[in-house]
Parts: sequence; C-alpha cells; structure tokens
Amino acid sequence: MRLRNVKNANIILQDSSYFISDPKMYRQHWREMFACDNPIRLEVGCGKGQFLIQMAQQNPEINFVGVEKYESVLVRAIQNAELTSLPNLKFICVDAKELVQIFDHEIELLYLNFSDPWPKKRHHKRRLTSFDFLSIYESVFQSDSHIIQKTDNIILFASSLEDLSQFGYKFLQISLDLHQTDLPNIRTEYEQKFANMGVKINYVEAIKLKNK
Amino acid sequence: MRLRNVKNANIILQDSSYFISDPKMYRQHWREMFACDNPIRLEVGCGKGQFLIQMAQQNPEINFVGVEKYESVLVRAIQNAELTSLPNLKFICVDAKELVQIFDHEIELLYLNFSDPWPKKRHHKRRLTSFDFLSIYESVFQSDSHIIQKTDNIILFASSLEDLSQFGYKFLQISLDLHQTDLPNIRTEYEQKFANMGVKINYVEAIKLKNK
Repeated sequence: MRLRNVKNANIILQDSSYFISDPKMYRQHWREMFACDNPIRLEVGCGKGQFLIQMAQQNPEINFVGVEKYESVLVRAIQNAELTSLPNLKFICVDAKELVQIFDHEIELLYLNFSDPWPKKRHHKRRLTSFDFLSIYESVFQSDSHIIQKTDNIILFASSLEDLSQFGYKFLQISLDLHQTDLPNIRTEYEQKFANMGVKINYVEAIKLKNK
Repeated sequence: MRLRNVKNANIILQDSSYFISDPKMYRQHWREMFACDNPIRLEVGCGKGQFLIQMAQQNPEINFVGVEKYESVLVRAIQNAELTSLPNLKFICVDAKELVQIFDHEIELLYLNFSDPWPKKRHHKRRLTSFDFLSIYESVFQSDSHIIQKTDNIILFASSLEDLSQFGYKFLQISLDLHQTDLPNIRTEYEQKFANMGVKINYVEAIKLKNK
C-alpha cells in the first residue's frame, strides 16, 4: 500500500512545475531559480499546502518554498497548487535535517505550522525547535533568524519557547489563543479542524538578530 | 466600610512580629534584620499568604518577604502566619513601585503569583512584568535576575513572556499546564480554586544573568 502510494505520488510530483526534484542543485542559486531578488520564506512541514498556497497568492512579492518529508502528503499540496498559477511557489520533498545542504543563507523567514509535537521527553531532539534543528536553520537564514510557529500542542509550545529563548531568540509576539487576536493569519487544514473543535491555537514570532 | 477595615487591619498588622511597618529602614540591612546570611526571596502580591507561609515552613534555610499593596488583604496573611512560628518570614505593605526604595541588590528570587492581569492593552504598563516593573526589579536583585511566575490568565502570560524575553530574560522552564507536570509546586488560594474549576495554570521560570 505504501509503495503503490509512493509510486503514484512520485509521478504526479515529477510532472508538476511546482515540484523541485533535486533541490540541492539550487544551493546558493535560489534567487536565480525564482528569477528575482524577492525574499524567500520556507514552511517546514507544509502538509497539504493550504497555508503556503494562500500565502503565495496574497503575497506575490515574496517567494515561498514548502518543505515536506512525505511524498504521499506532498502530492496533495502539489495537486492543490496545480489549480493555481503561482510563479512564487515551489515545493521540495526532503527531511528538515537536509536543509543545510539545500539553502546557504538564502531564507528570510521560516514557518513551523503544527509540527509533530513528539510529546515524550525522550523524543525532545526530534522536535523541529530543538537545538539540533535551530542549529541547522542558522545556515539557512540570510540575515536575522526569524521563525513563526503555530501549534495546538502545549507540550511542544512550552518546549519551543524554552529552546528558542535559550538559543538566543527573543519573542516579538506570543498568543495562547491566536484566533481571539487581530493578528493576520491564514489557517492550515489542521488548524481549521482543531479550531472547529474549540482547541486554542498557540502562536509565537521569534527573532534572533545576526551577530548577537 | 473601607476605612473601618483599614483601621482594624492596621492594628492587627502593627501587633504582629511578622509585619514590618517601615521597610525602607532596612534597605541594605535585610540580612541583619533576618540575623543570617541566607538568601532572601520576595513574593510580590502575596495575597492571603498561603504560598509564602508554606514556602517558609518547607525551606527554613531561605528567608521570605511577602509584599502586598492592600492592608485589608495583608491582614489575612498576617493572621494565617500568626498560627505558625517562622523566623524566616516577614510581610510588608507597599506598592511594587516602591521596591527600589526598600531593597538594594539583596534579593535572590522573585515570585509573581496570579498577579492582576490588566488584560486591556492600554493597561499594559500596569502588569507586574512590564518594562517599568522589570527595571525596578533590576535594583532589587542581588546577582542574576530570577523570576518565577504563575497565572491562569493567558493574556498576562503571553505579554509576560514577550516582555521578559525582550528585556533579556531567558526561559529555564515553561509549562502551560503546571499541574500536569512534576514540577514542585505550592498552590495559592486562588490557584486551588481555579484548578478545581479545571483551569490550566501557566508557569515560567526566567533568568537574566548579571552583566549580560
């Protein structure tokens, strides 16, 4: 079942102009790939792509790259993107650990939306805001390190705030109930489902100034 | 009504050895007042004193000072304290703004338990973690600035995390559901009431290293 899914997914991905099959080729050349100097933002764990597609539609002056580990998930994002025509949007299928081989100080901002919480203490290092990952992101950011995270999971959120803070990030904006604020927000598929269930969404915008 | 209450309260306070009526006299001399070199911790907004009395009972090697703005509230803490015999506990009746005139780099740690949330944006400066108050605390702390905060209010908590972070504090420990963790905890009266109603308690331990 898994193989058949992956096989179908791979064909759809390869056929789409939204998909970049060998992203390591573009290291140091992402501006050329987008054929413009606009800032580039990443979503790590873009899932079915609703957030990034809408962001790309609403912000034509910004380029977006969606990062997703699973082909079988990314294929849904690609299928959704194919309903649009967006020159400022691409998707890649890699593990976040590989980002250092794909971007060389080329990213303005990184989105972490509803990442796997890995709630058990012994899995702390797998969370996308652990020191291991924050270190990887350092080689990705062009200037200041700048992350926006959303999650319904309070264990992941508390752990992220601790790790971001101890790594040197400061918090520009925090909410423990995002949908009750007037912060601009595009909902992910997952976020919409949980909001309908009355679950509060946690939000943080964190920045670490370069050379600090 | 208010006058009568204050009058009664004042008599009870003045009669208690737990109460220090002129705390400014002890600026630079708190160790002498306690007649030992043990560290001194403050609770700002100690209410009816349950937290601080239990802390003093369980930690005889630490001295505690409870700070409360309202005589009519502090009198309850004093009455509760009078049921015990604790050489390491004192109470003072002042506004937090006056702390700079009372302590001169003599405090190890400051507790903020269920402070008034002042949830309206225009009252932000009144929150006990606003920059104005964090600046006051700087002249109170002996070495590193070290704050432990608990609150059920998510607007106050988010605002506190932003302000502490931007002021230079780092977060050692955060929980968005304190009672589900194994962190050691003594409940305040207010905390017990809200926990019984199923309200989650937010917790942060924040530190700002000296000369950083």
